[in-house]
Amino acid sequence: MFDPRPGESRLTEPQEPAATLCFIGHIESPWTDRAACPKNLRAARETGRSATLHIAPAYRPALEGIAAGELLVALYWMSEAPRDLLRQVPRHRPEGAGTFALRSPARPNPIGLGVVRVLTLDAGSGRIGIDAIDALDGTPLLDLKPHMPLADLAGA
Amino acid sequence: MFDPRPGESRLTEPQEPAATLCFIGHIESPWTDRAACPKNLRAARETGRSATLHIAPAYRPALEGIAAGELLVALYWMSEAPRDLLRQVPRHRPEGAGTFALRSPARPNPIGLGVVRVLTLDAGSGRIGIDAIDALDGTPLLDLKPHMPLADLAGA
Repeated sequence: MFDPRPGESRLTEPQEPAATLCFIGHIESPWTDRAACPKNLRAARETGRSATLHIAPAYRPALEGIAAGELLVALYWMSEAPRDLLRQVPRHRPEGAGTFALRSPARPNPIGLGVVRVLTLDAGSGRIGIDAIDALDGTPLLDLKPHMPLADLAGA
Repeated sequence: MFDPRPGESRLTEPQEPAATLCFIGHIESPWTDRAACPKNLRAARETGRSATLHIAPAYRPALEGIAAGELLVALYWMSEAPRDLLRQVPRHRPEGAGTFALRSPARPNPIGLGVVRVLTLDAGSGRIGIDAIDALDGTPLLDLKPHMPLADLAGA
């Protein structure tokens, strides 16, 4: 899939599928190629480009109670990332590190996480305008959760 | 699986499996039955009970670079939760709300999220002591990510 760089290492045994995911919708973002896609949400916000979450018809009733202005935790599926890298050498960290010490999309379960602000919400059409996202256009969505600062950050 | 309460609603069409997950390990927690399990991380911290993340042998090299004292985002799989609830009526919110406006474990993809503090880490045995967790003992682990306040919270 991808050639590992020097200092990178891979899983040596195949990964057993243990559970299945469904896609609840997808992300519409300005980022249509990987080179242009911001590497994290902070960088995405700095571009000033907003994005839209599209929720599939069957799941739209689950949007009830979300309001513009709120923060959501969006989980998404970075389906193009390799899943077998254990140690990686990203450009910003030339000494390398284990996958679980990095936010790289390449991970055993390539679940992306963004805390995003809801700008607009139309539950009928399943469209949620958000401030920014660091995901490629078309990325499948897995979950939306209300952001709970006390639970998500206590102890921080 | 579970009977919906009044005011709750369910998916009417079957969910298509679209991707597969692997389990990277499991959580050892003090919570062996659902009634005793704290409903969120804040409540879990208030019990003063710590927990342990166990990483499976194949994935232990991916822990390189994580240090005690750091915050990790742990993603876990709440495999016992129903996946077809669209609207729910939790005890703390008797008027009900859509699943994506709630942190209930019952959701299309029952991925739990906790920002936890690393107390101890032994990469060789794959054991990570953490301050607290709101997950049942034995819950499968999906991912660990370093917590990045600027990316995870900017705009908050």
